[in-house]
Amino acid sequence: MADMKPTPTLARLAATIEARKGGNPNDSYVAKLFDRGPDYVARKLGEEAVEAVVAALAGSDDELIGEAADVIFHLAVLLSARDLSIADALAELDRRDGVSGIAEKASRTPE
Amino acid sequence: MADMKPTPTLARLAATIEARKGGNPNDSYVAKLFDRGPDYVARKLGEEAVEAVVAALAGSDDELIGEAADVIFHLAVLLSARDLSIADALAELDRRDGVSGIAEKASRTPE
Amino acid sequence: MADMKPTPTLARLAATIEARKGGNPNDSYVAKLFDRGPDYVARKLGEEAVEAVVAALAGSDDELIGEAADVIFHLAVLLSARDLSIADALAELDRRDGVSGIAEKASRTPE
Amino acid sequence: MADMKPTPTLARLAATIEARKGGNPNDSYVAKLFDRGPDYVARKLGEEAVEAVVAALAGSDDELIGEAADVIFHLAVLLSARDLSIADALAELDRRDGVSGIAEKASRTPE
Repeated sequence: MADMKPTPTLARLAATIEARKGGNPNDSYVAKLFDRGPDYVARKLGEEAVEAVVAALAGSDDELIGEAADVIFHLAVLLSARDLSIADALAELDRRDGVSGIAEKASRTPE
Repeated sequence: MADMKPTPTLARLAATIEARKGGNPNDSYVAKLFDRGPDYVARKLGEEAVEAVVAALAGSDDELIGEAADVIFHLAVLLSARDLSIADALAELDRRDGVSGIAEKASRTPE
Repeated sequence: MADMKPTPTLARLAATIEARKGGNPNDSYVAKLFDRGPDYVARKLGEEAVEAVVAALAGSDDELIGEAADVIFHLAVLLSARDLSIADALAELDRRDGVSGIAEKASRTPE
Repeated sequence: MADMKPTPTLARLAATIEARKGGNPNDSYVAKLFDRGPDYVARKLGEEAVEAVVAALAGSDDELIGEAADVIFHLAVLLSARDLSIADALAELDRRDGVSGIAEKASRTPE
């Protein structure tokens, strides 16, 4: 796992996820997700992303914010299910920004 | 937009996105995304999420981390395209944690 | 709507969908989908496609076949919700095959 | 593979796909897809479904029809990559219709 310090919000989310990992599936939604296995968590992430796409095109601000939160939440659980962490994704964003900055991003082309 | 302070990484990402909004599409990937419009950004988010699902099931740790970073990045651009911010999604995660905690989460059921 | 004759299976599916359109949402799943509106049907299509992706990577043959059937089913309902039909999509596949054949397809490049 | 006879359109599509399977990736898009492997084809299906969702919410009729055709096309290739066929998915749709009809469908509930 990456060494960098995530946001208080995401650090707390990651800590909550780790604390509930392996717990009784009846006690928390997170434990239920882990109990269903990584394939199920991946599917949930994909479904939440579809809901975010629909909310972005046809939903209210509150709906889009809610779906965006769901995407981040399930992404964090999915990373944990692979023994990674949301901090790893943030570190990757930092790395891209540090190594390359504007130049790298400018070189990317939307298809 | 929410008032809360996001992570240094996400705060920097959000600032970069705002700075490039409305810029020359030839100068940065972010400006290109805004130039293509919110429907296109929503589509890109959906596609990156699919790639994260595939990486979660069949990819290496590095691939999954890279796709997770892509999901967060495009989610932040999508929120900005709707004049919202990734900070709003973090605030929503805080709100859920504060208001309801374990009890609320325990009441959620994977289908 | 296109003029061409779809498969018996798809023709029957399309006829069933049209027959239930506008019906009592308590009487059939199709009527329920229409009652929830096109945004909801689009979301369901996206979710079924995610399930097909997961089944393709990690599921049994029966699971993949079931998810593929779900994708076709919800695609047909979505087209109908826009006053189009699965026959239009088949006609488009025929058109591509007729107009262009191997040459056109060879020119396409996976990203 | 299922025994039933698919539509002329889908039968021709399935035959084209089988004929190009294992062919030179430089000669056809289908051969390129097989060359990239089932994970890549699954990813493409997911991406095309996202594009269909976006077209359903914000695109023209022609765009939606085009995306629907892309979904069916990539679904057929994905099934073939697993040594299944689009005919299997049609047979499953027939089976559901025959076994259960209105009763079964009425029992399904949109979440």
